[in-house]
Amino acid sequence: MTTHLPAASAQVSPRGRPRDASRDRALMDATLAELQRHGYSGLTTASVAKRAGVSTATLYRRWRSKQDLVVGAAQAWAENLGPDHDTGSLEEDLGALLHDKALALEGPSGRLLRAVLGEAAHNRALADVLFDAFVLPLQDRVFALLERAVARGEIPPVEDPLVVAEMVIGPMVSHTFLVPEREADTPAPGRDIATRLLPYLLRALGHRRP
Amino acid sequence: MTTHLPAASAQVSPRGRPRDASRDRALMDATLAELQRHGYSGLTTASVAKRAGVSTATLYRRWRSKQDLVVGAAQAWAENLGPDHDTGSLEEDLGALLHDKALALEGPSGRLLRAVLGEAAHNRALADVLFDAFVLPLQDRVFALLERAVARGEIPPVEDPLVVAEMVIGPMVSHTFLVPEREADTPAPGRDIATRLLPYLLRALGHRRP
Repeated sequence: MTTHLPAASAQVSPRGRPRDASRDRALMDATLAELQRHGYSGLTTASVAKRAGVSTATLYRRWRSKQDLVVGAAQAWAENLGPDHDTGSLEEDLGALLHDKALALEGPSGRLLRAVLGEAAHNRALADVLFDAFVLPLQDRVFALLERAVARGEIPPVEDPLVVAEMVIGPMVSHTFLVPEREADTPAPGRDIATRLLPYLLRALGHRRP
Repeated sequence: MTTHLPAASAQVSPRGRPRDASRDRALMDATLAELQRHGYSGLTTASVAKRAGVSTATLYRRWRSKQDLVVGAAQAWAENLGPDHDTGSLEEDLGALLHDKALALEGPSGRLLRAVLGEAAHNRALADVLFDAFVLPLQDRVFALLERAVARGEIPPVEDPLVVAEMVIGPMVSHTFLVPEREADTPAPGRDIATRLLPYLLRALGHRRP
């Protein structure tokens, strides 16, 4: 899964030079691998360049600094939540979103997030990009599916949609990041918890079952 | 808050030597500070000893290795979730638990957790101690308060108490770790989300309001 190509890697370069997509991909792969292995503070641009098979000069043409590189990687890897699904049913919309988020957290997106969460506690640029790239897209999908469900009369108006978004993202994050393999009796703990969460979320929203 | 004394620091030493509580406290403080600053891979026992004002020999008499030291710090700092509250009401029991967890996550316990989550992805001993010290005590409190509420007839039997525990811990974790200060319009984002979560959790449990 480490070699999964960020869907939008072509958009994340901060500089104006002609781009080589395979080099960018190698650099994003290498950044994730180095982050997982050594954490933010242990990562060096030299080791990323070496792992990606490019010179540090090449790396610096694309990314001015280590922080720039990691922020770029967070943007690149975060983009695999997938599009909004409008199925005409809250249960199916929410189930699809939970499943998409679980897949993202089990994959490179989740590994990136996990590796930089600690650094984001005292790195404003990184905290901002994590929020923009991981939290906002999920919130948008939650807000949209709630609005549709209210419009269809499936649920009463939602007083606090932000809390509902936290109830979608939070249990997936805690279950994927905090339950060791010895405790998870499934190879896909995120997707397992997604399925089990759904009925509780529907009840929390006052969903009237058809 | 960094100087908050772990309640049970006297219990976490792995060695049989006579203990000096103030030294242990200084070492646990220093470990947390170094973890926050440099992450797990950037932390050295020498820098922890220096910050704590002890020799590395003293440190090694208590902790055999860097991993030992960090595992000990996780145990020491995790112990501030507080005791179970039996108030006779699900709403109050759950509100108290959410509040306790929010306080823990905003304090040194949360900072420790955040700083080592990335390392725990590939460090079995650390993953195990995080689960045992952060997740299990919370699950126990959730299971106990659900049982009492069912016995009182406040809610129907709970099919999946583990998911309910994830719905308590998860949103607190994601809100505390993923929402940057610019987005949180309160100095206590954890406690704020605790209050806002409560009615949704009660509804998810099928709580019959008195």
